[in-house]
Amino acid sequence: MRTVGTLLFPGFELLDVFGPLEMFGTLGDTYRLEMVAETVGPVASRQGPKAIADVAIEDASPYDILLIPGGQGTRREVENAHLIDCLACHARASSIVATVCTGAALLARTGLLDGCKATSNKAALAWVKQQGPYVDWQDRARWVVDGKYWTSSGVSAGMDMALGLIAALDGTAKADEVAVHAEYHWSRNPHDDSFAALYDRGNAGDDT
Amino acid sequence: MRTVGTLLFPGFELLDVFGPLEMFGTLGDTYRLEMVAETVGPVASRQGPKAIADVAIEDASPYDILLIPGGQGTRREVENAHLIDCLACHARASSIVATVCTGAALLARTGLLDGCKATSNKAALAWVKQQGPYVDWQDRARWVVDGKYWTSSGVSAGMDMALGLIAALDGTAKADEVAVHAEYHWSRNPHDDSFAALYDRGNAGDDT
Repeated sequence: MRTVGTLLFPGFELLDVFGPLEMFGTLGDTYRLEMVAETVGPVASRQGPKAIADVAIEDASPYDILLIPGGQGTRREVENAHLIDCLACHARASSIVATVCTGAALLARTGLLDGCKATSNKAALAWVKQQGPYVDWQDRARWVVDGKYWTSSGVSAGMDMALGLIAALDGTAKADEVAVHAEYHWSRNPHDDSFAALYDRGNAGDDT
Repeated sequence: MRTVGTLLFPGFELLDVFGPLEMFGTLGDTYRLEMVAETVGPVASRQGPKAIADVAIEDASPYDILLIPGGQGTRREVENAHLIDCLACHARASSIVATVCTGAALLARTGLLDGCKATSNKAALAWVKQQGPYVDWQDRARWVVDGKYWTSSGVSAGMDMALGLIAALDGTAKADEVAVHAEYHWSRNPHDDSFAALYDRGNAGDDT
């Protein structure tokens, strides 16, 4: 049994969180899902709907997989030193750290991505790069794996990365089974990034 | 401004809800999202994470779009006469009713789909058909539109339907903009259903 700890913060992007959790959660015998935030209770997404944090990050046990979503809220949270410190602590203790979209900016702020290959939302990549000048940012990738760090491109790329992670941990047949359960057309090639051209069109004002 | 009311019930499927809401919610100036359930408060998904219902269905104003997700919980809710009555009332009052996956079974139980074309999750279609014997069920479709009723196939098909709905209401350019924002490969042809072969492999025990 692996525990996936998913970070919530005000202004998280809905699909960054619940796309990957659909995939992990389909394998309920293998993955246990826990929602974690600075404080326990409801957390509002960028789109409005609220999810519940089960545990405060200071009280959380280390996770097998730490999932960090993006969303407009990352623009504020990169300056939240307490959260970044807690994330650094958890990222060090986790077996795998996976980010979706601008969640990579939060992980970059911990310094743990320095020298690693990583990617993020293409429309916001210019801003994300500023959060980690020593990261080896990849301008063209659906998702990138460097050691224990898995970073995906924008929003729905998180689902493809999650299936890639399941394939790596549980085998491709299991990932295919999950994708079919969700009737999802899995983009299984991490190098195939049809949205890379969005790079340089983005800026800090982009809301992803 | 259109209001999208999304039904929550214990055991709802995460992506059935948050896939479409990612799409509608990206257009925050056009769509207002409200979460509705039998009672206000936290509702646990099939995968575990909990979302918050803002309003009780008995107290909710009519919606422009009523979104009904699927999930394992539908197996219990089809027998919940109070919920089905409330859904019937709201479905009559709503301009558009959209279902994802086995959410079509709940709508079928109201009788309002009788004589209409509709679809659902292919792995569970045999069970769904039993919930609405007078519905003109389509065995091969990503999503189906019949008047004000939009019904989609399994889980991730809800995102494609939501984009189709945005295209119908706000134009294809706007739907494309939303898909690009989510870096989502939109399956824009409602007739293209590569998962149709799952039909007859499904049964009432399937958990979608």
